[in-house]
Amino acid sequence: MSAAAGPGRVTLLTDFGTRDGFAGAVKGVLAAALPGVPIDDVAHDVPRGDTRAAARAVARYWRRYPEGTVHLVVIDPGVGTARRALACSASGRFLVGPDNGVLSPALSSAEGARCVSVDERVVGRGGPPSATFHARDLFAPAAATLAAGRGLDSLGTPVDDPVLLAEAVASRTGRAAEGQVIGRDRFGNLTTNLPGGWAESGGVVEVAGRRLELVRAYGDVAPGAVLALVDSEDRIEIAVRDGSAARALGIERGEPVRLLRR
Amino acid sequence: MSAAAGPGRVTLLTDFGTRDGFAGAVKGVLAAALPGVPIDDVAHDVPRGDTRAAARAVARYWRRYPEGTVHLVVIDPGVGTARRALACSASGRFLVGPDNGVLSPALSSAEGARCVSVDERVVGRGGPPSATFHARDLFAPAAATLAAGRGLDSLGTPVDDPVLLAEAVASRTGRAAEGQVIGRDRFGNLTTNLPGGWAESGGVVEVAGRRLELVRAYGDVAPGAVLALVDSEDRIEIAVRDGSAARALGIERGEPVRLLRR
Amino acid sequence: MSAAAGPGRVTLLTDFGTRDGFAGAVKGVLAAALPGVPIDDVAHDVPRGDTRAAARAVARYWRRYPEGTVHLVVIDPGVGTARRALACSASGRFLVGPDNGVLSPALSSAEGARCVSVDERVVGRGGPPSATFHARDLFAPAAATLAAGRGLDSLGTPVDDPVLLAEAVASRTGRAAEGQVIGRDRFGNLTTNLPGGWAESGGVVEVAGRRLELVRAYGDVAPGAVLALVDSEDRIEIAVRDGSAARALGIERGEPVRLLRR
Repeated sequence: MSAAAGPGRVTLLTDFGTRDGFAGAVKGVLAAALPGVPIDDVAHDVPRGDTRAAARAVARYWRRYPEGTVHLVVIDPGVGTARRALACSASGRFLVGPDNGVLSPALSSAEGARCVSVDERVVGRGGPPSATFHARDLFAPAAATLAAGRGLDSLGTPVDDPVLLAEAVASRTGRAAEGQVIGRDRFGNLTTNLPGGWAESGGVVEVAGRRLELVRAYGDVAPGAVLALVDSEDRIEIAVRDGSAARALGIERGEPVRLLRR
Repeated sequence: MSAAAGPGRVTLLTDFGTRDGFAGAVKGVLAAALPGVPIDDVAHDVPRGDTRAAARAVARYWRRYPEGTVHLVVIDPGVGTARRALACSASGRFLVGPDNGVLSPALSSAEGARCVSVDERVVGRGGPPSATFHARDLFAPAAATLAAGRGLDSLGTPVDDPVLLAEAVASRTGRAAEGQVIGRDRFGNLTTNLPGGWAESGGVVEVAGRRLELVRAYGDVAPGAVLALVDSEDRIEIAVRDGSAARALGIERGEPVRLLRR
Repeated sequence: MSAAAGPGRVTLLTDFGTRDGFAGAVKGVLAAALPGVPIDDVAHDVPRGDTRAAARAVARYWRRYPEGTVHLVVIDPGVGTARRALACSASGRFLVGPDNGVLSPALSSAEGARCVSVDERVVGRGGPPSATFHARDLFAPAAATLAAGRGLDSLGTPVDDPVLLAEAVASRTGRAAEGQVIGRDRFGNLTTNLPGGWAESGGVVEVAGRRLELVRAYGDVAPGAVLALVDSEDRIEIAVRDGSAARALGIERGEPVRLLRR
């Protein structure tokens, strides 16, 4: 828990959209339990049920927030089935969401990450949660409990085997490295699993029959040109300046990418 | 007003979108009057001018927020015409918006709901409001006044006949009940006016020539299958797992739905 | 700086979208530096790289927020190139963003506006910023510094020639005025550079071969009709009630518009 006085900030990532009022209902439950606490929307437009896209997003923000923050992540195609509801701590932050891999970035990378399976009887008020809306009836109350400073163990029993989304690992031999595309953002930029550190002295990226010199910034090439650079997560990225690499190259997740270091 | 110290939280539901800065202008007016108070976006992507969709969303969140909260709801195709501007209280929350039915869920369901017609001269500062942007010039100042703890009666004179959106009511005789589809969310799930409580011991739903056994959760059927369940508002819902019931069945608001209780 | 106690509120305008977690990462950096401070999303869906659309949005909200507010505006196609990073003050508010014109509305209209070029060494922590994500690594730390009450001069050296987006100016002779369309919002409403004050006693607007009487509100004409009115920024606007003027008239930015005063 943070040393800061007062309850921690809560963030929200869902695939609910906003227009129907579902995200509003979740925020209402949080606001009722945590008066005055800011609730930060990260996104409500994650592609429906896409746990892998959600995990890629979580990787970008979860550790930027200060200790004591509670990250609520509800991409939950299995709502109402037997899948567990998790509450976890990692590097001083908390994460709450279904046990389907959306919390992987925090659980895989942080030393000493810990999870419990949230007990409906602990957070429910007057009856079991709706079978279709655990974000409101189960996850939000659990998040509010953590934000208010009550520890993880008040919510349920330990879980040693949370679902983790496996990510292909890049390999290297000598000056060549083999990886693949592991994600794309809404601009069509393609993230690979090749660490930026492997190309510290520059290099060439081979993908979809192209040879791309590594550059430093999008603005280093002409508009419309394909490029490779080290992205803000320190990974090799394939992009098109002011355009979409996914569309320009016609490739997607899983496409092999080769790095030849200088 | 809430017993909580300090001004109440404000929420926002509009059809303004975000990119043009209109919602930002409304939040600026609120922030100027209420330093430090969190402003929660519920949505800015309600379909343009769709007061009925807005009311369905309001029904989902307004009472989840704590007492003292001010809900600003501006779907306002009649802006600048003679339609009244309302400020209301219901169950300890406040609601502010045009008198066109968007506040119906709170005004219909809460005992002791009360409204006033907001007087431009009370909230305006130096002149009448713009004829195209009452959210900024009239509704936001009224909301800020309420959030700061000044009562409803400071804003205008009582209104006894606010516009309410009539909703078809389901009926039942013996083991059969007749209702209809009353809304769809952005996933294509179809909400009906059949209360979930009418199917406590299970039942069959007939819609668009199909017979659907009531299940408990989306995950209880195969991906792509049509299903019926009790939704998080305790109403019978028609859905397709990981798909759109509106598209799969080719039906919309008004479609008859029959419930045969077990 | 505002007289209000505590750090100022921060607002965010970007073209990052939300689903990938980039905006979340920026908010995390702000939250870590400013615990408890509300962060207001204005929009993350500005058309990609459209600095002019961003500036039109900034014009609508920047001065509605109270003094002490910090507006972070990151539409930054030149990220990682030699373009400067600006931090500015204008009318008691602060603005932070790339030196490409997005801050023009504040810098052009406010007396005594002042800017500095943000020095990477001052705000960076342990190394230079990523070449692709200055919002997170450079602009957000600069914004947090200002929100915490440290002055502009702590961030870098003065800039006397920030990039300003030139806007065509309308002209008038006798009872006729000549202007043009300078923007469109997501509804297809067309903003012109003709000041509303020039039509105080009414008038006729000529555009795309049409003659339109100035009306007061959208509701003053029939659904689907083309109209002209004075908008909420006190400019002449061309609109279609419940429709899109841009589509109905087939015109866009630059189209000549003529005003004949009564």
